[in-house]
Amino acid sequence: MKIYKAHILFTKEKDHFDVIENGYLAVADGCVVGIATDVSAFQAPEAEVIDFGDRLLIPAMNDIHVHAPQYRNLGIAMDLELLPWLANYTFPEETRYADPGYAERMYRRFIYDLWRHGTMRASVFATVHLDSTLRLMDLFREAGMGALVGKVNMNRNCPEALCETLAQAESACTALVQAYGGPDGLVRPIITPRFIPSCTPELLQLCGTLAQRHHLPVQSHLSENTDEIALVKQLEPESRNYGDAYHRYGLFGQTPTIMAHCVWTAGEELQLMQQNGVMVAHCPTSNFNVSSGMAPVRTFLDAGIPVGLASDISGGHDLSIFRVMVYAIQVSKMHYQRDHAKPFLSLSEAFWLATKSGGSVFGRVGSFEPGYEFDALVIDDADLNHDHYTLLHRLERFIYLGDDRHITHRFCRGQEIPAPHYE
Amino acid sequence: MKIYKAHILFTKEKDHFDVIENGYLAVADGCVVGIATDVSAFQAPEAEVIDFGDRLLIPAMNDIHVHAPQYRNLGIAMDLELLPWLANYTFPEETRYADPGYAERMYRRFIYDLWRHGTMRASVFATVHLDSTLRLMDLFREAGMGALVGKVNMNRNCPEALCETLAQAESACTALVQAYGGPDGLVRPIITPRFIPSCTPELLQLCGTLAQRHHLPVQSHLSENTDEIALVKQLEPESRNYGDAYHRYGLFGQTPTIMAHCVWTAGEELQLMQQNGVMVAHCPTSNFNVSSGMAPVRTFLDAGIPVGLASDISGGHDLSIFRVMVYAIQVSKMHYQRDHAKPFLSLSEAFWLATKSGGSVFGRVGSFEPGYEFDALVIDDADLNHDHYTLLHRLERFIYLGDDRHITHRFCRGQEIPAPHYE
Repeated sequence: MKIYKAHILFTKEKDHFDVIENGYLAVADGCVVGIATDVSAFQAPEAEVIDFGDRLLIPAMNDIHVHAPQYRNLGIAMDLELLPWLANYTFPEETRYADPGYAERMYRRFIYDLWRHGTMRASVFATVHLDSTLRLMDLFREAGMGALVGKVNMNRNCPEALCETLAQAESACTALVQAYGGPDGLVRPIITPRFIPSCTPELLQLCGTLAQRHHLPVQSHLSENTDEIALVKQLEPESRNYGDAYHRYGLFGQTPTIMAHCVWTAGEELQLMQQNGVMVAHCPTSNFNVSSGMAPVRTFLDAGIPVGLASDISGGHDLSIFRVMVYAIQVSKMHYQRDHAKPFLSLSEAFWLATKSGGSVFGRVGSFEPGYEFDALVIDDADLNHDHYTLLHRLERFIYLGDDRHITHRFCRGQEIPAPHYE
Repeated sequence: MKIYKAHILFTKEKDHFDVIENGYLAVADGCVVGIATDVSAFQAPEAEVIDFGDRLLIPAMNDIHVHAPQYRNLGIAMDLELLPWLANYTFPEETRYADPGYAERMYRRFIYDLWRHGTMRASVFATVHLDSTLRLMDLFREAGMGALVGKVNMNRNCPEALCETLAQAESACTALVQAYGGPDGLVRPIITPRFIPSCTPELLQLCGTLAQRHHLPVQSHLSENTDEIALVKQLEPESRNYGDAYHRYGLFGQTPTIMAHCVWTAGEELQLMQQNGVMVAHCPTSNFNVSSGMAPVRTFLDAGIPVGLASDISGGHDLSIFRVMVYAIQVSKMHYQRDHAKPFLSLSEAFWLATKSGGSVFGRVGSFEPGYEFDALVIDDADLNHDHYTLLHRLERFIYLGDDRHITHRFCRGQEIPAPHYE
């Protein structure tokens, strides 16, 4: 058993923070044993006590939608909308990942940057290439960080070099399950049809079959952009809506499912998500940058639809989930400004989305309740703390003003995670 | 004469960048002499050449609306709207600035943080207190950074301790003009009625008189929030709109005028701004955080109304004008998403707003054209530059992903500015 002493803040419930000033948090076998204000409560006099003094101890960040091979394109070409941006920047870059050497060089930087920003678990889109995807999974395993990694499925409306056959899709899935299919693995595969416009009905059907055959979760994109929605309507005329198209192929909650964006989800599509327990990956920075719109997170929460936060680089420009929290609150304030019946997200709600709610994708992750895997960050905010602030205001200031310089320790599943090597 | 060699990027026009790869920029008497790709063009063989190698040389940032005494409140209490936020957080904090010792401690940190983020000129709200305001001006002068500093005028709807008499307002103005009234000073006073709800008609009239008597510019707040606009309508029933209320007191373009926010400015108010050449301080982060709305910057630009960018801390949460650029583009994308007839801001437009357009408040500032004061930043983006990027993509990546760690040198009016001392 190890015991960490610090000011402990987390969100068991979305509506308020649990705040334990000078608390002790005990960890055994990678999981939280409990929290106490007196170390003797653990009746473990031999346990090592690590004292973080005046620092804050919070759950680590979870990023539930991020495109690893778009790392090079981060912060460029922000002048295009979704479909031309895919054609001109995203697809040409992803083509380079046929070369596992290039992939490894870029993926190492990507993982280092996730680590730097305090993200210990991510649900990741790779590319269509099996070898590079396996390399990405190896790198996550080496780093000791958690990931659901999707080898992307796609076979239409994209460059020839990014198209796969059905046979390739199936055999790649088998290879991924053989390599990383263990149920308790930190790194696991996730079925990842890119989105309806990139996949023929046959490929979508195969994806649904593979997800159910191997009990794998699913991730894709949903109702991000009005042009995209019109295109899907044309491609899938028999579906009642974009979500229903996934549903018909077994890709909408038949196994645990994350759908990114859902900016324009409403009506029957919303009901279907609710009914099927499909999770929203809310990507507010990306939705701004790609001119998509502002997703109605309060509506999702009111409907009991699960939601987590996501950077969606390189549609999003910032890997920091703390920054994404700020944007999520801001987007909700624009909905509130137009309709006061939709209260904006509180800080505790945004934090809960990034930790306990988003973390649920990875198991018992994102809280400090007993039995949760110990994923945590230690925050040294001394240089932000130049007057008298409450612990909650200190956390709020770190979220709004802080950066990677303030994160002094990172833990995933109980292990302290050192900086992953790159170059 | 000094000559700086680097990759030079700036925006003479809003619609495109001037990019000079491996350019030489000559400076004499604090001003830009010219730019050349061959150093011999300057015919100054004795001039010192400072070689910044592969780095970028860009104009420094201008922040045309920022509340220095709200520095302590940065990143806290983001759960309130404008009027309760003023009452519960802003006014209690500003009351502390009656103590020049407290003011100096906080103002030093504020100026250091402006410097850190590459902002070399700012148009600043202080508090109602003369002594603390003079101390703030002294600190800007000591730092070598440019500022328009406003001792705030207010005498109603606020705590007694923040109310002044008309006689105090007039004598304070005289003292500020005596101390800092020189026309070429880097630090100068600006008439600063807080906003209509905080000033009686008599005080507003006095502010207008003082501005014209001393040829001083004016700054205030306009049409930020719908509740505020309703309050002004009630307080000034004879005015045609919020802007017209300022106009009637000689505070709307009779001398150069900056109005912060203008989120809801339209119709006759917009026409009056256009007619009077009133400048908009666009504060997109603040407008999100305080649930105000999204200002129609494209409409202002189309109408020929001058616009600059502003952090508006602590309504805004980030002093970095680079971050404000990103937000300004994002806000314009949400307008574009609803109405494609309103093109979103290009990167060059956002950069121009932050440099040449916003800089115009301070004189010939914000460009590298001959005769402009040399306000500049040197950007070392080596750790962002891990593949082949164009110079424009390098600048875009720095704007979206970079931070103070990438700024290696800062210049204001030709002088290199070292880190201001604090604590």
